[in-house]
Amino acid sequence: MTFSVTILGSSSALPTSKRFPTAHLFNSNERFFLIDCGEGTQIQLRKFHLRFGKINHIFISHLHGDHYFGLYGLISTFSLMGRKIPLHIYAHSELEKLLNCQFADNNLGFNILFHTIPKEKSLVLYEDKNITVSTFPLKHRLPANGFLFKEKQKPLNIRKEMIQKFQLGLKEIHSIKSGEDFQTKDNQIIPNIDLTLPPYKRRAYAFCSDTAYYPDIVKYIKNVDILYHEATFAEDNKDIAMETGHSTAKQAAQIAKLAGVGKLLIGHFSSRYKNVKILETEAKEIFKSSEAVTEGKEYKIDLVREKRND
Amino acid sequence: MTFSVTILGSSSALPTSKRFPTAHLFNSNERFFLIDCGEGTQIQLRKFHLRFGKINHIFISHLHGDHYFGLYGLISTFSLMGRKIPLHIYAHSELEKLLNCQFADNNLGFNILFHTIPKEKSLVLYEDKNITVSTFPLKHRLPANGFLFKEKQKPLNIRKEMIQKFQLGLKEIHSIKSGEDFQTKDNQIIPNIDLTLPPYKRRAYAFCSDTAYYPDIVKYIKNVDILYHEATFAEDNKDIAMETGHSTAKQAAQIAKLAGVGKLLIGHFSSRYKNVKILETEAKEIFKSSEAVTEGKEYKIDLVREKRND
Repeated sequence: MTFSVTILGSSSALPTSKRFPTAHLFNSNERFFLIDCGEGTQIQLRKFHLRFGKINHIFISHLHGDHYFGLYGLISTFSLMGRKIPLHIYAHSELEKLLNCQFADNNLGFNILFHTIPKEKSLVLYEDKNITVSTFPLKHRLPANGFLFKEKQKPLNIRKEMIQKFQLGLKEIHSIKSGEDFQTKDNQIIPNIDLTLPPYKRRAYAFCSDTAYYPDIVKYIKNVDILYHEATFAEDNKDIAMETGHSTAKQAAQIAKLAGVGKLLIGHFSSRYKNVKILETEAKEIFKSSEAVTEGKEYKIDLVREKRND
Repeated sequence: MTFSVTILGSSSALPTSKRFPTAHLFNSNERFFLIDCGEGTQIQLRKFHLRFGKINHIFISHLHGDHYFGLYGLISTFSLMGRKIPLHIYAHSELEKLLNCQFADNNLGFNILFHTIPKEKSLVLYEDKNITVSTFPLKHRLPANGFLFKEKQKPLNIRKEMIQKFQLGLKEIHSIKSGEDFQTKDNQIIPNIDLTLPPYKRRAYAFCSDTAYYPDIVKYIKNVDILYHEATFAEDNKDIAMETGHSTAKQAAQIAKLAGVGKLLIGHFSSRYKNVKILETEAKEIFKSSEAVTEGKEYKIDLVREKRND
């Protein structure tokens, strides 16, 4: 039950010789979701041996080129590879016009199903049996949205020895898995907590880029396991961060701290930072579990059980 | 007086983890011309430390995405870098519509001057004091054009000792440099050939991609120093080459041979060839001076004087 994100690009608008523009590949149990698609995303997918034929859903945070110019090439490649399965794209309405313009005369061989992201409110965009993907507004020079990938609550696991002990049938097992207590034939009540293993923690990953420092997002990303928050600048360029609707590493860390997340990943680095260690160091001063992302690295969130106070 | 081409991308439509789609940077005496602009061109320019702020003219061979999808990112980057100088783009008319659509709401801060390339005829597209750039039709699935970069004839250099010997004035020097003979005060005619060094050879570079085997182009590219000709396939896929409007390495070499070029560069390799040595080997069987291009490599043409039969 993989729940992970692989960073494909960590650069801000001007790519460097070492860093590509923004794109993240989210993996939910081998279903792949692309978050943003900067120029060269398909090249990065190949470089890191990721099977991009399995991407069916693409979420675009906002319409600055470094977050979507790779869509044209990726869509063309899907077509050349004979794709038949529809491709779902979630973005602000302006992107639909651009795609219609770009692919007006093309017979791609598959459908693009466009889902408009509202600019001002939070909303669930996608749902399957394992996860929901929701969106919420960020604060940038033009409308921009964050995304929250959250695992659904899995059914409880019954302790094996209890099945035998109480001779549980299918119906009773189903009921206990959903959280019910069990009543024996002699009317004894066995509490659910004694019958089941502690539930799995619901894992969550949040993506927040591009955005200025904006504590309003904290309510959406509370306690997520991994928060990716842009950190375009270090403290030396705090003023430029403010002017351009971006965050410093410290501001990203401040959001992580307020939200009580498990781990903070920072990225979307300005090309002026050849070495991004300074950004990581500054973030760590505020929030210890901070890391400057590395392109190609997969950040996994393990499936763990909650602790019960027995 | 540099006259060179640097290969930025050598892949056909599907980029690989090692090869980028088509783009060449032509350098005429430190004026830079981009030929095609596949996805990731700006990334390659940075990787190879090329000063792309100096690019003022971009020639697009045809409108398959792997030859122009990098334009969007490059144009955006020019804008972010504060470009003010107009950018000239030479391409088929359909591209103008796409650019207008993509940058409709943007204030780039500089003008794009669009020059429509005719699809069916040869034409000079650009001229300055050093070179002309002309175009000619190729044969592909959709209209595609080749480009010829040809140096102009430079004025002759006068042998230093002749200036003193005949006490040449400015007017006489100008006349001799343009090829005239010289008449001494006692009416002796000194032939131009005795007064001047042999003229420089006019250097030429031709770009032919994408195209099927098409000997009609030979008349345009006769005796060029370097011919870049696509070689998407080896002989094992000759049928696919024909179906898709591409060439094999041997066909590219056949064109080089017919045109009597100095050197053949092959590129636009199908992703199925992890190692392109087989393509180079097949080309060499027909035309010895063949080379499979390497991304980042600059192919220079030296300035040499013609040989005179004195």
